[in-house]
Amino acid sequence: MSDRDGMTLWLTGLPSTGKSTIAADVADRLRRDGARVTVLDGDEIRAELTPDLGYSRADRDENVRRIGFVARLLAAQGVVVLAPVVAPFAAGRASVRAAHDRDGTSFYEAYVATPLAECARRDVKGLYADQRAGRLRGLTGVDDPYEVPAAPDLVVPAGAQRPGESAALVHEFVRARRDSRHAGTHRRRWPSSLRASRSSPA
Amino acid sequence: MSDRDGMTLWLTGLPSTGKSTIAADVADRLRRDGARVTVLDGDEIRAELTPDLGYSRADRDENVRRIGFVARLLAAQGVVVLAPVVAPFAAGRASVRAAHDRDGTSFYEAYVATPLAECARRDVKGLYADQRAGRLRGLTGVDDPYEVPAAPDLVVPAGAQRPGESAALVHEFVRARRDSRHAGTHRRRWPSSLRASRSSPA
Repeated sequence: MSDRDGMTLWLTGLPSTGKSTIAADVADRLRRDGARVTVLDGDEIRAELTPDLGYSRADRDENVRRIGFVARLLAAQGVVVLAPVVAPFAAGRASVRAAHDRDGTSFYEAYVATPLAECARRDVKGLYADQRAGRLRGLTGVDDPYEVPAAPDLVVPAGAQRPGESAALVHEFVRARRDSRHAGTHRRRWPSSLRASRSSPA
Repeated sequence: MSDRDGMTLWLTGLPSTGKSTIAADVADRLRRDGARVTVLDGDEIRAELTPDLGYSRADRDENVRRIGFVARLLAAQGVVVLAPVVAPFAAGRASVRAAHDRDGTSFYEAYVATPLAECARRDVKGLYADQRAGRLRGLTGVDDPYEVPAAPDLVVPAGAQRPGESAALVHEFVRARRDSRHAGTHRRRWPSSLRASRSSPA
């Protein structure tokens, strides 16, 4: 395990796109590969790291900034950090990337692209129903902005995939980035037996 | 580098005890040993992670709690985390330890014990002078409480040592904890050439 293995992969997208489910599955796959992995899940992080913050634009940006700071500390130590966090504003995501760039730490943005209608149908946490019923205001993508990434490093078509297919796609993306950093160093991260068994996204 | 190498070492003590200086020196020594090290320095962390917090008891406890959370994430990934942070309240330090215990992650408390008069003489940031001049209220150890650790894992007699001596003592403490975890596993972390050159605290 080398420091060069570290990276932050931010999974941005609307509520109920499947970000957390995909991240948990990718984390399992990477751990089986022998990687160190930390998942900075939006909801857990809000309880632990940003309990003072609400859902105003400034608070959402500060939430993303703090998660980005912690991700950077971990990624610099060789950890693959998965951040399934809405992060609705392009500027907030860009400033996390810029902070990683300043440190020389890898940062990738994956856009988990599930159509809004499908997110509202899944509605894992009941947020869309609450918004329709008037119990919730400021739901990202409905009555609060979501700025679709203009140039993400990866698009995950999660609306047209089962979660396992999306996870396989993201897993493959991470493995390829890690492999390329080890190319020419006479180190292989995964034995060929594992490589042969990897699944392909649809 | 194994996950078992990870630990959090909290350096608690009054302002100007030398916590940050010692932590930076210990970090250098551990990196030369090949360890992964992150220093969560109190002042930097306040800017990055807890910019919303002041110096009330509740805010100080929340500051310590958040730093403890980040330390735990890093230590669980095999990183030696040094936290040179005042952490004036025993309950706050105990709850960080308890959170580590729940995860099965090692936590140690080092009390950097410099007498108050010596801290005030050093006064690296001018806080003691500000307090005397009435420009600052709530200075830990003067007009705000500092609860001396009742049972620290290590006492660093920094008032009677040069910083390099204190750093050597802390370094030795960390190495011994890491070594003992590897005992019997047929893995040595440090070659004998390094062991022979280590310096002893006075």
